[in-house]
Amino acid sequence: MNYCSQCGGPVALTVPPDDDRPRYVCPACGTVHYQNPKLVVGCIPIWEERILMCRRNIEPRKGFWTLPAGFLENDETVAAGARRETFEETGSRVTDLAPYLMVDIVYIHQIYMMYRCRLQAPDFHPTRESSEVKLVAEAEIPWDEIAFPVIEKTLHHYLLDWSTGRFSFRTDRIDAPPKSLQQKR
Amino acid sequence: MNYCSQCGGPVALTVPPDDDRPRYVCPACGTVHYQNPKLVVGCIPIWEERILMCRRNIEPRKGFWTLPAGFLENDETVAAGARRETFEETGSRVTDLAPYLMVDIVYIHQIYMMYRCRLQAPDFHPTRESSEVKLVAEAEIPWDEIAFPVIEKTLHHYLLDWSTGRFSFRTDRIDAPPKSLQQKR
Ligand SMILES: [Zn+2]
Ligand SMILES: [Zn+2]
Repeated sequence: MNYCSQCGGPVALTVPPDDDRPRYVCPACGTVHYQNPKLVVGCIPIWEERILMCRRNIEPRKGFWTLPAGFLENDETVAAGARRETFEETGSRVTDLAPYLMVDIVYIHQIYMMYRCRLQAPDFHPTRESSEVKLVAEAEIPWDEIAFPVIEKTLHHYLLDWSTGRFSFRTDRIDAPPKSLQQKR
Repeated sequence: MNYCSQCGGPVALTVPPDDDRPRYVCPACGTVHYQNPKLVVGCIPIWEERILMCRRNIEPRKGFWTLPAGFLENDETVAAGARRETFEETGSRVTDLAPYLMVDIVYIHQIYMMYRCRLQAPDFHPTRESSEVKLVAEAEIPWDEIAFPVIEKTLHHYLLDWSTGRFSFRTDRIDAPPKSLQQKR
């Protein structure tokens, strides 16, 4: 951040009065520009004991497999955002959403909220964001081609609870990028 | 938003390519300025079957009673944010945090995440943000002086689960400001 989005003047990184950490502050108009983590919302859509997965058609990690998820928008509930992302990436509507897993990814300022849910119908299809969309049984999950660690964690939690038949709300965290991505930098 | 925080040029409200809604876009440098909901994180701190509440010493709703809560910051987990806010507002440390209630407040672009937790010690005291901090039994909750509807909802959920002895993760939503606040506008 270099300029004030309100008045266009240059901002300074300074600790405001009654605050305890540096913020981008505009000396001209006084606006404090807070920066906060973003919520990423997504689904584990189930149809006849299989999980709906998508092959990413966009960067980052194009060609790798994921669960439908994306940034929560203003003017929607967390569950509505998860439903919207699932529709955008798979073409399918989901129902019976239950909050399932919250994952802190502090180093990229993201919080994931993943929902368990059911497909309303197996009417999924490739979309702009997904080159391939398919239902996978546990044995068919492409573990070597998963797009992001948070998706791998979500699948692991889900399969563990599935095996016991008892689902409860869970939390997890990812503290650093995976080695494969670190080496590419 | 009027100006680009990257280059200082004027922004335009327009639908970017491959997007489906208007965003503030900078014609000069191409930056798309996304705006997303913020997470507010807080606690229901318990000590010997009583709930720790704070009387607000700052606007909005100065003088009204609340539970410790505030905006999640970058570089902290959701639970760490809830612990930090509780310490800032009450002077006390909390432990055994369990995610308890997520509340969508779409009209102000906020998502609340409230945790159940225990006080480590009853060493709370007034702070810059709280003119009074005290433990209240159920019968002592100042229902007519609660600062925000989300706090009232949190207390109601908590007391209901407390009465049955069974706590599970819950969600709720607030769709409009309370009438008392609407009339003031
Ligand atoms: Zn300014
Ligand atoms: Zn720009």
